Amino acid sequence: MCLCRRDIQIKKCRVFYIGTLSFGLDSVLGLLPLSPRSSEKNKTMTDVNVAELVRQSHEAKQKAYCPYSNFQVGAAVLTEEGTIFTGCNIENSSYSLTICAERTAVAKAVSEGYTKFKAIAVATNVSEKYMSPCGACRQFLSEFTKDSGDYDIYMSKPDLTYDKKKISELLPCAFSLN
Amino acid sequence: MCLCRRDIQIKKCRVFYIGTLSFGLDSVLGLLPLSPRSSEKNKTMTDVNVAELVRQSHEAKQKAYCPYSNFQVGAAVLTEEGTIFTGCNIENSSYSLTICAERTAVAKAVSEGYTKFKAIAVATNVSEKYMSPCGACRQFLSEFTKDSGDYDIYMSKPDLTYDKKKISELLPCAFSLN
Amino acid sequence: MCLCRRDIQIKKCRVFYIGTLSFGLDSVLGLLPLSPRSSEKNKTMTDVNVAELVRQSHEAKQKAYCPYSNFQVGAAVLTEEGTIFTGCNIENSSYSLTICAERTAVAKAVSEGYTKFKAIAVATNVSEKYMSPCGACRQFLSEFTKDSGDYDIYMSKPDLTYDKKKISELLPCAFSLN
Amino acid sequence: MCLCRRDIQIKKCRVFYIGTLSFGLDSVLGLLPLSPRSSEKNKTMTDVNVAELVRQSHEAKQKAYCPYSNFQVGAAVLTEEGTIFTGCNIENSSYSLTICAERTAVAKAVSEGYTKFKAIAVATNVSEKYMSPCGACRQFLSEFTKDSGDYDIYMSKPDLTYDKKKISELLPCAFSLN
Repeated sequence: MCLCRRDIQIKKCRVFYIGTLSFGLDSVLGLLPLSPRSSEKNKTMTDVNVAELVRQSHEAKQKAYCPYSNFQVGAAVLTEEGTIFTGCNIENSSYSLTICAERTAVAKAVSEGYTKFKAIAVATNVSEKYMSPCGACRQFLSEFTKDSGDYDIYMSKPDLTYDKKKISELLPCAFSLN
Repeated sequence: MCLCRRDIQIKKCRVFYIGTLSFGLDSVLGLLPLSPRSSEKNKTMTDVNVAELVRQSHEAKQKAYCPYSNFQVGAAVLTEEGTIFTGCNIENSSYSLTICAERTAVAKAVSEGYTKFKAIAVATNVSEKYMSPCGACRQFLSEFTKDSGDYDIYMSKPDLTYDKKKISELLPCAFSLN
Repeated sequence: MCLCRRDIQIKKCRVFYIGTLSFGLDSVLGLLPLSPRSSEKNKTMTDVNVAELVRQSHEAKQKAYCPYSNFQVGAAVLTEEGTIFTGCNIENSSYSLTICAERTAVAKAVSEGYTKFKAIAVATNVSEKYMSPCGACRQFLSEFTKDSGDYDIYMSKPDLTYDKKKISELLPCAFSLN
Repeated sequence: MCLCRRDIQIKKCRVFYIGTLSFGLDSVLGLLPLSPRSSEKNKTMTDVNVAELVRQSHEAKQKAYCPYSNFQVGAAVLTEEGTIFTGCNIENSSYSLTICAERTAVAKAVSEGYTKFKAIAVATNVSEKYMSPCGACRQFLSEFTKDSGDYDIYMSKPDLTYDKKKISELLPCAFSLN
C-alpha cells in the first residue's frame, strides 16, 4: 500500500580509519584497476577503492567556487565502468543557482555518457560529523538508480574517515515519475 | 560519530480510510477550530484535522500550472497557530525553475510570517500509491524543523486516504549548516 | 532569422521621486480601486498605483527568511484583476533551494488562480542602485507573459524611488518551449 | 542612477553560414591551437574557432538525458586558456532539479579550475530559430563575467549556423551581490 517497498533500518555507522594509510596507497592505486571485478558484481567495493574515491572527493573540494558561504564541498562518483568523475560546489549571487558538488560530479559523468554508478563520495571540511548530501542532491542521485541500482554514498571527514549509506537509506520512499 | 542522531526505523505504513466520511465531515469542519488545543501540544492531530488538511491539499491541486508534465500536485501546510496555507506545482519552460506544491505552500506561509509548522499534506492524482515529496522539497521542509520540530507529512491519494511520515523519516541525516 | 522578434533598446532609466508623498497617499489608497480601468487597458498604471505596489514590496521585505545572506528582498505582483500578492526571499541551508521574493509573490498568485499580471515591484535595502531581478526570476516571470503580455518590473530603493523596465527588456530573446 | 551601466542596443543578428565547410575543417582543427593568440587578446575569435565550438556543442547534445522533455540541448564553453568543456541537459523526475547544458559545461570547467571564459556555444535540434539560454543559465554564466569580462554566447541551429550575443545583451542590468 505504501510507496516504500520495504522497511528501512539504518544500521549503526560503520567507520573505517584509513587516514595516513591511504596516502601510502596512492602510488599503488595508480596501478590498481578500479574497474569492476567478479567479486564486485554485487556492487561491493574494496576498502582500497573506497579510500581512493574519498581521497579524490577531498581533492576536488579545493576547486570549490563558494565566495558566499565559504563552505567547500567536493565529490567523486565512480561509474560502473570504473571511471571516476569529481566535482565541487559552485555558488551564485542568486543563491538558488548554486550547484552542489555531488550534482557537478554526476553531471560531468552523464555528459560524458555514463549513467550507471557504483558509489559517490562526498567531502567537506567539517571534522565534527559526517556531512550528508542535501535533499536536492539525493533526488538528483536517485534519478540514476533506475540504471545503477541502489548505490553507495560515502560521507567523509577531512581525516578521510567515512560513513556509508545507500541512497535508499538517505532518500526512503523516493519520489519518481513512473 | 554519525550525523544521524539516532537509528531510524520506518514503521509499517499506517493507512486510515477516511474517504466518503470526510465529505460528511466537511460541513462540520467549518465550525471546528483548527487551532492548537491542549491535547495537541505534542503535535498530534485529530483525524478530523488531518482529513481537512488532506482535503485542502486536493483542492489546491486544481490550481496547478503544469503544462509540461500534466502532473498536478497540491499541498496544504498547517501552522502552529492553526492557519492553513495551500499550494500547487508551478512549472516553467526551463524545467529547473519549477516550484513544487509543497514549496509553494510553505513559501506562502513564510511570506506571511509563519515559520512553525505542525503538518503538511500532499496530494496527487495517482491512485496506485502514496506519492511522497521529492528530495528538494524534503530539504526545503527540513529548514523549518529548527522552529517547528519534526513535523508530519501526510501523503494522500485521490480517495483521500493517506500515509503519514515524519520529516526525519523521509530525510534522515538531514543536511544543515550548523 | 533571430529569436528576438525586434531590436530592443533600453531607454534611459526613468526615475520618479515618490518618497514622502506616498505615505500621505496610503490612507487614500485604501479607498482607491486598483482594478483595471478603461485608461489602463494598455497596461499603463497610475503613479498612485505604482507607489502602492512599491510600498507593499518594501513591507513584504520584512518577512524575508534570509539567515545565510542577510539580504532582504520583497516583491509585490499586481494581477490583471487588481489583486496584489506579496512575497519575500526564503533561503535554505542548501543554497540551491532558495526561493527569491519575486517567485514567492508570483507563486502565491498562481496558486490562488491568477496567471495574468500587470506589474511586479521588487524591493531591497540597497540604496546605491536599483537592484534588478536575477536571471532565474526573469525566466519565471517570463512564463506568464503568454497570458499577461509584456508586463512591467519596478525596481525600487528604500526611499521608494523606482526604475521601470519591461520583462522583454530584462530578458530579451527569452527562452521558451514553443 | 540606473543599475545598467550603459544603454544597450541589440544589433541585428549576424548569421554566418558555416555548414558543410566546418566538416572539412574538422580534421584541420585537430592541428590548430585553440589557445589565445595575440589577435585574440580582445576576445575576438576566428570563424574557425567558433565553428569548432559550435560543432562540439552539437556533439555534446547527443549525451542529453532528457526523458521528460525529449528536448536535447548541448553546450561547449571555451576557456581563456583555450580548453573546451562540453555539456548537455540532465533532467529529473522532479523537474526543478534539471541542469541545463550550459550549466553542465560551465560546472565542468569550474570544477577543473577554470573560471575565465571567452565564449559558450549552445545547440538544440530546433531549426526554425536560434534558441537562447534560459534566464537561469544567463545568471549562472553572468557570475563568471567578474573574471572573464563580457563573453560571447553563440546560439546555433542543427545546420551549424549561429547567432552571437554578449551576456550583457541577454542579461542586461544583471543581478549581482556587490
